Amino acid sequence: MSDAFEYSSEKELIALLEEIFVQNGCSDVVARQLAENCTGAERDGSLSHGVFRIEGYVNTLRSGWVDGKAVPIIEDKAPGFIAVDANNGFAQPALALAHDAFVEKIRSNGIALLAIGNAHHFSSLWPDILPFAESGLVALSMVNSFACSVPHGASTPVYGTNPIAFAAPVEGQPPLVFDFATTTMANGDVQIAAKEGRSLPAGTGVDRNGELTNNPDAILDGGALVPFGGHKGSAISLMVELLTAGLSGGNFSFEFDWSTHPGAETPKTGQIIIGIDPSFGGLGRGLPSRASVLMKMLEDAGFDARPGLRRHRLCAERRTHGIPLKISQLTRLRALASGAI
Amino acid sequence: MSDAFEYSSEKELIALLEEIFVQNGCSDVVARQLAENCTGAERDGSLSHGVFRIEGYVNTLRSGWVDGKAVPIIEDKAPGFIAVDANNGFAQPALALAHDAFVEKIRSNGIALLAIGNAHHFSSLWPDILPFAESGLVALSMVNSFACSVPHGASTPVYGTNPIAFAAPVEGQPPLVFDFATTTMANGDVQIAAKEGRSLPAGTGVDRNGELTNNPDAILDGGALVPFGGHKGSAISLMVELLTAGLSGGNFSFEFDWSTHPGAETPKTGQIIIGIDPSFGGLGRGLPSRASVLMKMLEDAGFDARPGLRRHRLCAERRTHGIPLKISQLTRLRALASGAI
Repeated sequence: MSDAFEYSSEKELIALLEEIFVQNGCSDVVARQLAENCTGAERDGSLSHGVFRIEGYVNTLRSGWVDGKAVPIIEDKAPGFIAVDANNGFAQPALALAHDAFVEKIRSNGIALLAIGNAHHFSSLWPDILPFAESGLVALSMVNSFACSVPHGASTPVYGTNPIAFAAPVEGQPPLVFDFATTTMANGDVQIAAKEGRSLPAGTGVDRNGELTNNPDAILDGGALVPFGGHKGSAISLMVELLTAGLSGGNFSFEFDWSTHPGAETPKTGQIIIGIDPSFGGLGRGLPSRASVLMKMLEDAGFDARPGLRRHRLCAERRTHGIPLKISQLTRLRALASGAI
Repeated sequence: MSDAFEYSSEKELIALLEEIFVQNGCSDVVARQLAENCTGAERDGSLSHGVFRIEGYVNTLRSGWVDGKAVPIIEDKAPGFIAVDANNGFAQPALALAHDAFVEKIRSNGIALLAIGNAHHFSSLWPDILPFAESGLVALSMVNSFACSVPHGASTPVYGTNPIAFAAPVEGQPPLVFDFATTTMANGDVQIAAKEGRSLPAGTGVDRNGELTNNPDAILDGGALVPFGGHKGSAISLMVELLTAGLSGGNFSFEFDWSTHPGAETPKTGQIIIGIDPSFGGLGRGLPSRASVLMKMLEDAGFDARPGLRRHRLCAERRTHGIPLKISQLTRLRALASGAI
């Protein structure tokens, strides 16, 4: 029966996941935010950051590595700069707490920066920034993680998967949103491929001897990923590493280890979001209307993978028809929520 | 004799190039800024944006496509946002004019944005942002160009080479600086390869029929480049396209043509610079000292291509020993400066 599906409504899935987070030591507010985040990822087809992540969240919470009840401390550093100390909690509650003050700074200054340090980020970045684009703002976010990527031309891992995400409003259409690891692949996708016994594209990573491999097990077992796009992707990964840790006060991806907390899986690092109010720019031509001109040109050029559109379509469809989950997965989630396991 | 070299001092080369720009219709201030910029690129080994570019500048100025005497108009849009209308002039004088006000905004707000529209950018980005890092600030810049790159999965060119550049201070060391086209290669480097009859790495671009090619002539003659790094590099190129044109009011790379000005080579587009004062971040750990920790780790990991270091070394060496130029090149520059050709 493990391949059969059951459809869960967004509301049901949020409630189920919320219960799991509460059962495992999260405060109500943190549980709610993580449950909404994880449900959104599953709903919109970001499977590597959907319910697949729940085991990792639970293991990490049970290990004591992260504080599920942490209350973030917000510091107003400058008219365009907010720093948040997440107090060893998750990044999403820190962002939620700072959100309104951050938007106010973006709108009054034209641009503002939010730096979240001492934080655990275990999800996608796009759910963090999509709301900004839905309110007409532009947002760029980055987060580092744990050392699992060998810089181009180096021999040992230094960088994390170090994703970068971008969101911008498009007149008359859903926002343009992209979000990708600056490694060849997200770590969650390597784990999923390993689980499913699939091999990866050539050049995805290296094994424990530094040899290129397409075997997900070899990458996960003492090997590493490599940055996408050779030295250029590697430079972007370096920028992410420096800006996220350097501006947030968080760790570099190579600066912590989980050895004192067996089972821990969340990287304890830093995140930044740069928000821009495009209404100050453009010499009279608004960014959202210009974005729609660019989208039209891309369509005419045969570009059919407009970033963010697939997730938007899945979201609309599943808000109507429910979110498909494997019955074996749902059974396990229900057991976790009841405290039985 | 065309392969023999003569060493020119930085001062001599600036004076020579300045004369060329004045001879071809630039104001004294614009001529000086372009000459310094071009000399700096040649000095630091950025050959695709050094004196190689002079013919293109001259052809463009003579075509009437760009105004060498343009006076930019600066608009203070918000506490963190400056917009500059370059008035159909070059981007570098626009940046120079806005520089002090921009730095003041970065330091008082923590982050600020400078958008330069109605502008021609025909050089590297790193000379624009290196000075910020030398004063302890972080800078990120992007500029679009002319349609010469086929988005990943599309069939016709939409994006420009759309470079992205980043600079940050490193304690006790020269700044970290990278600058690269988000295409597989800079357009200037394709032109240099074509001149020298070299082929390019596989997958650098497509020919006029959309077939992948390593032939620089096929790329330049009705073909196009492709973004670096597949769909991820393509997404970054899209972000550059949208932010630069969308925030500056400049054209998209596909929105202008040179047909009314034969000989014109400079793209008339937009540029943005985001400046960050890292002293507001870090939870007590300064970014420059953290950057030096990261550089040390990279060195230990066998990473020997630290961005910006090669240029820094060449700069120091050539400030002492002079800048080597082919005698045939110098002869031509002198003829251009004298007005003989």
